[in-house]
Amino acid sequence: MGHVRPRAEAANRAMKAEGGWAVVSTQEAEIHPTSDLSPFAENRIWDARDIPALRLITDAVHDKGSLAAIELVHNGNHAQNLLTRGPIFAPSDMSLSYALPKQARAMDKSDIRDFRRWHRDAALRARDAGFDIIYVYAGHNMTLAQHFMLPHMNQRSDEYGGSLENRVRLTRELLEDTREAVGDDCAVAFRFAVDEMLGADGMQAAEEGRAVVEMLKDLPDLWDVNVCEWANDSMTTRFQPQDGYQNDYISFVKKVVGDKPVVGVGRLTSPDLMVSMVRKGIVDLIGAARPSIADPFLPKKIEEGRIDEIRECIGCNICVSADTQGVPIRCTQNPTMGEEWRRGWHPEKIAPKGREEAALVVGGGPAGLECALQLARRGYAVTLAEAGPELGGRVTRESALPGLGAWKRVADYRLNELRQRGNVDLFTDSPLDADAVAELGIPNVFIATGAKWRRDGIGRTTLRSPPRIAPDASIYTPDDIMAGHLPPKGRIAIYDDDQIYIAGVLAEKLVQEGYEVSLITPGLMVSTWTDLTLEQHRVQSRLIEMGVSLHVTRQLTAVDAGSMRVACTYSGREEDIPCDAALLVTERHRETALYEALKARGDLTTLDLIGDAAMPALIADAVYHGHLAARSFEADPAEVDRNLFRREITDLSEETQP
Amino acid sequence: MGHVRPRAEAANRAMKAEGGWAVVSTQEAEIHPTSDLSPFAENRIWDARDIPALRLITDAVHDKGSLAAIELVHNGNHAQNLLTRGPIFAPSDMSLSYALPKQARAMDKSDIRDFRRWHRDAALRARDAGFDIIYVYAGHNMTLAQHFMLPHMNQRSDEYGGSLENRVRLTRELLEDTREAVGDDCAVAFRFAVDEMLGADGMQAAEEGRAVVEMLKDLPDLWDVNVCEWANDSMTTRFQPQDGYQNDYISFVKKVVGDKPVVGVGRLTSPDLMVSMVRKGIVDLIGAARPSIADPFLPKKIEEGRIDEIRECIGCNICVSADTQGVPIRCTQNPTMGEEWRRGWHPEKIAPKGREEAALVVGGGPAGLECALQLARRGYAVTLAEAGPELGGRVTRESALPGLGAWKRVADYRLNELRQRGNVDLFTDSPLDADAVAELGIPNVFIATGAKWRRDGIGRTTLRSPPRIAPDASIYTPDDIMAGHLPPKGRIAIYDDDQIYIAGVLAEKLVQEGYEVSLITPGLMVSTWTDLTLEQHRVQSRLIEMGVSLHVTRQLTAVDAGSMRVACTYSGREEDIPCDAALLVTERHRETALYEALKARGDLTTLDLIGDAAMPALIADAVYHGHLAARSFEADPAEVDRNLFRREITDLSEETQP
Repeated sequence: MGHVRPRAEAANRAMKAEGGWAVVSTQEAEIHPTSDLSPFAENRIWDARDIPALRLITDAVHDKGSLAAIELVHNGNHAQNLLTRGPIFAPSDMSLSYALPKQARAMDKSDIRDFRRWHRDAALRARDAGFDIIYVYAGHNMTLAQHFMLPHMNQRSDEYGGSLENRVRLTRELLEDTREAVGDDCAVAFRFAVDEMLGADGMQAAEEGRAVVEMLKDLPDLWDVNVCEWANDSMTTRFQPQDGYQNDYISFVKKVVGDKPVVGVGRLTSPDLMVSMVRKGIVDLIGAARPSIADPFLPKKIEEGRIDEIRECIGCNICVSADTQGVPIRCTQNPTMGEEWRRGWHPEKIAPKGREEAALVVGGGPAGLECALQLARRGYAVTLAEAGPELGGRVTRESALPGLGAWKRVADYRLNELRQRGNVDLFTDSPLDADAVAELGIPNVFIATGAKWRRDGIGRTTLRSPPRIAPDASIYTPDDIMAGHLPPKGRIAIYDDDQIYIAGVLAEKLVQEGYEVSLITPGLMVSTWTDLTLEQHRVQSRLIEMGVSLHVTRQLTAVDAGSMRVACTYSGREEDIPCDAALLVTERHRETALYEALKARGDLTTLDLIGDAAMPALIADAVYHGHLAARSFEADPAEVDRNLFRREITDLSEETQP
Repeated sequence: MGHVRPRAEAANRAMKAEGGWAVVSTQEAEIHPTSDLSPFAENRIWDARDIPALRLITDAVHDKGSLAAIELVHNGNHAQNLLTRGPIFAPSDMSLSYALPKQARAMDKSDIRDFRRWHRDAALRARDAGFDIIYVYAGHNMTLAQHFMLPHMNQRSDEYGGSLENRVRLTRELLEDTREAVGDDCAVAFRFAVDEMLGADGMQAAEEGRAVVEMLKDLPDLWDVNVCEWANDSMTTRFQPQDGYQNDYISFVKKVVGDKPVVGVGRLTSPDLMVSMVRKGIVDLIGAARPSIADPFLPKKIEEGRIDEIRECIGCNICVSADTQGVPIRCTQNPTMGEEWRRGWHPEKIAPKGREEAALVVGGGPAGLECALQLARRGYAVTLAEAGPELGGRVTRESALPGLGAWKRVADYRLNELRQRGNVDLFTDSPLDADAVAELGIPNVFIATGAKWRRDGIGRTTLRSPPRIAPDASIYTPDDIMAGHLPPKGRIAIYDDDQIYIAGVLAEKLVQEGYEVSLITPGLMVSTWTDLTLEQHRVQSRLIEMGVSLHVTRQLTAVDAGSMRVACTYSGREEDIPCDAALLVTERHRETALYEALKARGDLTTLDLIGDAAMPALIADAVYHGHLAARSFEADPAEVDRNLFRREITDLSEETQP
């Protein structure tokens, strides 16, 4: 939410404090207008005008009994300064780290003096805003302090370049300046990426990473260590199923820094792993971003021995995708994430039921399960009817695909709780039509019947010119593949007009099954959307490595028995891609027959359409809309418009100071 | 600036009113949370909470004597609803128009009733906010009203689908609803894209476009007509050098609607063309977005006969690139654009000089010319010394390249005014060293010595692994080509690590000159950045058509005498691209020798480094920084920090209503 939505940000941070996290930290906070990340909304501490918004955070966190930390950051050539139009800084002259038309200038001595003063002033403002812990930040390949350390970015010949000691000088000064500025009022933490995960091409934990820790070990009060870049720090389960995957890189730190406390991350959700990391002397404190998003109450649940109630992060990086799109955070597992202030949602609390007694949920996918769970928590007698033999819907189907196993936690968490409740009846193999629903006599019905992939090749880019599908063409959809209906072994061409993740995952599966796979997409890359979850480079690299034949910027025009005909999205030039079968991944049809039939009858007290049946989207959206429906049921009519919520609006009072 | 920066928005609109525009309109205003364009900041009129921000605009526009208009828009499946998470609407079920994981649902009758009510309520709020003219909007392929009209998006079988009359029904209802809601308090305008510029594949002015105008001709008070999609409406001069390029499409409208006034657009900057359009009966009123951005005072200048003072739009779409990046508007020609409120800048006014009398500007490129012009307007005796034989710097060089001719206006406008002033001396062929500057005895010096393209292949993506350049390789830079230093005819490979526009333009030039051209880039497409100016599709299509061999996602590893060696950015796999010469377009070296020498002497009152010499960037940035330097000269020391300006901050007062 960042500086644009300070009340939402404060409520979000406060929820983590309430959930038992001993320290709650901000995201990165821009210290100066020359580190302007607009249009992305991180935190901001440019001058005194930013203090009131930050004070909301510290007050809210302190109110729940935790300490508040702030990450002071200057982004160097990772800042675009699109709002401020200020100069871009780097150790040496170089381009922006984006394909945007600006270059950074090598900081001269006066720039370095300015930067140190800005950082020091920001530390003082942070203290004045009530923060207990102030971070100096050298990580993620996104921060000036780290940029000075990296030889390829620092070609200086003065005392800030050359030897490692010289390249670390600026960081040392920032640590000393911060200590001197805030004295004993605040602790000084240092976040440092010990390894770039590039082997000998980058900083390595065994080489300069360790040497930096040795040089600076006595300066910070707290060492916070990880790997970079961001795509390595925040690996998804698809590409790194193992929690605690940073341990091999960071484990040397505690041995070097001795008594200084060390905190680390690595998608840590298992209490056993956490305990073993502390016992082994890898860390003193457990850090978390994503696990605390999926379950803000993770510490409290451990403390109280409610281990099986932990809502484990599935490592899908939907949270990251919100950041990379510049919109408020969301989470697949925790639908209340980002909704704490604007809708008043609490991840562990929900209003008790009103006058109605019973509810029927039709469909056991993510929307149905979440809706049923929250209705059960509210105290209704809940009946959930799933047409198929298994619960979990698309979560169950997709989590059986390569790399997506951890996604099953979405169903597991909900089923675990639903099965323990006396007010819930779960039925499988129970397809219902309108008559069957009427016979059940439950007046409140939530329809979560999902969606099915189209078979006709129509989607985002083919809408204006639907492809010609020959009658003898061999056509498959993702539903077929997930249901085990596979074509005879041979060549299969996947057409991906969806461009999210499933086509890339299915390509992997089909190669594993022994097919010769081509993947064709009108996008510029494979699985375009996964760029937002920091996965795209790995997706495309893996498919190339597996021998998948990739065809980007190609639009489907026809499928024949032995080939797929595609046209260049630029030139229109057509070509044939030979294939024995075609897998069309375009868009989904909503399954609304039951909903329409019940609507036509018009005799129910409540009839609600949720999940993919209402809007084919992500699993995260299905969970959210299931949750929203359960919260909205029997709500005050004045609050019934689901499109309304509290929102942040720009202050219109006139400001005289620049 | 939109709803996020309402005071900046109001000041910007007021400047156009002051400049003589009879009506000043907002950009599109989202009428409801289901049309949420976040993170892009357009206008917003979701509910009463948005009225105060809009009232700032109407008050400011009225204060300058103009009428205020608002474009009420629902974006249908062009809205992503990333902030609100609300349902996405469309005439029929379909994907979002972006590669994002959401699908729109076909609106049922109740959705249509809701939508009409939302639109009506928004019209009433617009009236209450003080708008004089309220738009119903069916254009840009981005609005629900238009989506209903287009057969490929509307497959409905009810009275809102099928025949054209049915497909227009919703728009007719919106026009009638709006009229009924606001009565005679406001005029009702209708913006309608009469042609999709797709020939028979889309709506055509000669067919259904005309029929729609005939059906609705009596309903609106004002017809505002254009073409779509946005990339056709806002064509750049690179791909459409002719102003008034929409006339052929829109000229039928006036004949159909008779007495109703008609307004049109088409990058109209020439008063002669404007007059001829009115005389020919094409339009009654001249509309403008980009020309009013380049010169808010265009109407006043025409009215007062100051035609040669018009700062003509160059059609570069830098304004559009700000919108597509979600940051405040900027303009190449008008550096005050977007700075009206936050820096208090006026395009036609600047503070008179202080105690200093004279200034020297070294370098006659865009930064130097703008700085000299503004210093001259402030009353200083200005000396401008250009080392080369011509003024204009990179503007002159680049505007000689294919498609960029109109960019010359950046230099022409400034030179025209500088040459008429008695307090300005312009010198060409006048290279200066520090001794020469000292001899001139001018104590205030602005260095605008520009930048030169690197020759070593180092840039954004090669920084960590600089390419190997063989001693006998034939290497060229953009500076060589622009200076006429071309290789012998043969095969040339362009390596584009810059990814902005110049490599694509040079490829065109070299094909025209008879070379066999390959273009290699680590980007996913050619000239990545031009996607932000709505040009990328045309750039890549044209290069394919011209026979340029394109290699995307390839990083340079070496240049040898007869080939360029590149590696796949995903797999690392290497390949050789045969070429007789290599053109390396990576990044630029700042030319700072004179600045450094003068700084070392330390005997000047003022020494300022501006333009590409300070930060290699766009021409728009050079003009802006030249302007900023001239404004900052002799400013109050308290205002001297150029990184500070007024800014909009979120209201922190607690809000109780959702």
